[in-house]
Amino acid sequence: MERKSIKSVLVLVAMEAEALPLVNILDLKEDVPPRIAPPAPAVSYTGEKFGITINVVRNGKCQLHGVDNVGTVPAAVTAYLAVHELKPDLVISVGTAGGFKARGAAIGDVFLATAFANHDRRIPIPGFDKYGVWRIDAVPAPNLREALSLKEGVVSSGNSLDYSKEDWDQLHANEAAVKEMEAAGISWVAHLHNVPFLALKSITDIVDGDRPPQEEFLENLHSAAQALQRVISPVLEFVAGKTIKEL
Amino acid sequence: MERKSIKSVLVLVAMEAEALPLVNILDLKEDVPPRIAPPAPAVSYTGEKFGITINVVRNGKCQLHGVDNVGTVPAAVTAYLAVHELKPDLVISVGTAGGFKARGAAIGDVFLATAFANHDRRIPIPGFDKYGVWRIDAVPAPNLREALSLKEGVVSSGNSLDYSKEDWDQLHANEAAVKEMEAAGISWVAHLHNVPFLALKSITDIVDGDRPPQEEFLENLHSAAQALQRVISPVLEFVAGKTIKEL
Repeated sequence: MERKSIKSVLVLVAMEAEALPLVNILDLKEDVPPRIAPPAPAVSYTGEKFGITINVVRNGKCQLHGVDNVGTVPAAVTAYLAVHELKPDLVISVGTAGGFKARGAAIGDVFLATAFANHDRRIPIPGFDKYGVWRIDAVPAPNLREALSLKEGVVSSGNSLDYSKEDWDQLHANEAAVKEMEAAGISWVAHLHNVPFLALKSITDIVDGDRPPQEEFLENLHSAAQALQRVISPVLEFVAGKTIKEL
Repeated sequence: MERKSIKSVLVLVAMEAEALPLVNILDLKEDVPPRIAPPAPAVSYTGEKFGITINVVRNGKCQLHGVDNVGTVPAAVTAYLAVHELKPDLVISVGTAGGFKARGAAIGDVFLATAFANHDRRIPIPGFDKYGVWRIDAVPAPNLREALSLKEGVVSSGNSLDYSKEDWDQLHANEAAVKEMEAAGISWVAHLHNVPFLALKSITDIVDGDRPPQEEFLENLHSAAQALQRVISPVLEFVAGKTIKEL
């Protein structure tokens, strides 16, 4: 796989407000009929750019509550169905996240993931404990990081926007620079399919700061989505046609 | 859907130790080639009994850590693929769980779910808060409950075997009688597919008791799995050929 040049990239996004700026800047079109068959709520967009096929797939909306299907469960289901259908050479989870200022994060930064882990799966039985945390490396992309001057760090996932004391302790054990709600679930699916996986996370709120995450998140969602919009084209242009080892 | 008689039942189980006693008592055979295509780690078993088709599907083992793929992410992915492939008339999540003695639970009891909710998805933004908890009713099955003298209550799911203070508060807000790690994720998938969904949960440990859950869980896993083995045949015999409204 690593000698093959990258000809298709699947970009997975949880929220519509994160996805649409990417769809616009990449000039993608919504797939009609849908590429991810119902009843999956996922919505996909496709186009050709930089000589490769680009798909952006978002998790769609909750039928009962009308909000975006955030969290690891919809992320993993969408990822499974999208990888199966689209057979990408590279998967990138793109979205907003909390950042740790102790690891150099500031609002608006875009981080490249070095590894993925969970901070809300505590199973204190030997074997299950490591499975719960899961921790797995991202595909190394030192040239991409340098070319785009991205910060880098561990992305830790959990299903809450806030954190409990136990989450906090595991975030630190995971050496998390970035806290979000999807990437670890997707990394499990990417590992099953043996498909290279990266993540780009734009910081909306400071986890080890003074303010409640929901306040900062809503305040900075738009500007963080714009930061992702600025970075997505250079990232895709960089990876297009390269082998995984060249990243 | 509700006028159709039940001709196929999909039983979803997280752990091999929970699944094999069911497979044995129902005299099912492992599907070769697998019905759930790789790279999904799920393992499926099929047979005919009580005049209907019965499939038991477990989540399979973690490639990295060798343990069963427990938690909401593998449960939802397995459920999605299994429902898509097998098109069951009824889905039942069967497994072991913690029980609240304050809601009448004792070790070895088998509970029938009345509703499903999450206790570890805190998203304090309007709309997302309700999405996070998710709460959805199980298909009503008063005749089944009475015929088998099952206890009943809300099944609340989270990705940890233990609980944080925040989990505890949400377990109480959910009025949980049963705490486990899969059913809410499956209930999301069942809702997407509009397929009737039940759960049977056998109590291995008392959540509001004095002992660490991992101790009681390991001590009582075998006897709780036996309790499920005793109840599964009468449950399937009861539902076979009935309509959903007759349950």
